[in-house]
Amino acid sequence: MRVEELKFDERTGLLPVIVQDAETREILMMAYANREAVEKTVRTGLSHFYSRSRMRLWLKGEESGNIQVVKDILVDCDGDAVIYLVEPKGPACHTGERTCFHNRLTSSPGL
Amino acid sequence: MRVEELKFDERTGLLPVIVQDAETREILMMAYANREAVEKTVRTGLSHFYSRSRMRLWLKGEESGNIQVVKDILVDCDGDAVIYLVEPKGPACHTGERTCFHNRLTSSPGL
Repeated sequence: MRVEELKFDERTGLLPVIVQDAETREILMMAYANREAVEKTVRTGLSHFYSRSRMRLWLKGEESGNIQVVKDILVDCDGDAVIYLVEPKGPACHTGERTCFHNRLTSSPGL
Repeated sequence: MRVEELKFDERTGLLPVIVQDAETREILMMAYANREAVEKTVRTGLSHFYSRSRMRLWLKGEESGNIQVVKDILVDCDGDAVIYLVEPKGPACHTGERTCFHNRLTSSPGL
């Protein structure tokens, strides 16, 4: 699938990006990208996103140095969500944890 | 983290759900859930979502039989995205593929 075929949200121009460790398969974070962020990721091999709070393109690690080298990009059947398979050069989470998904849902009686 | 602490989108009442195979760590699909869908997932141990196209609660496999037994739920640092760790009882994708993410982004010269 080509970048031109990706389906960005009509209202926001974004699609969700799941970042997964290419080696361990651990899910590191979830963020959003516009077309420019995907294109820049493809061109540079470093994960780029669109920050909804700062309303601008965002190179992961631009301040922290914790960049992610993108090894591959997978696209779902609808073309409206992607996975960046990465080699992380540091923790994904601003808390210093390796992954942003370091909490469990505790009220899970049925689980 | 408790269900009450999850941050659903103010406009849509939804949050993104990543479905990951609890054993192989393969990412199977991405969908959305409202509070009711998360609560029903917790209560029944089967993955529930909110279908944006059909605008209703959706039990994965309700028609196909391809249910997903939810083993755990992880929450990201912002509380606005979750992972269902599941044991799939059939393919996740309506195409019959095991995962919805069965396509690569082909125009990836830098990757």
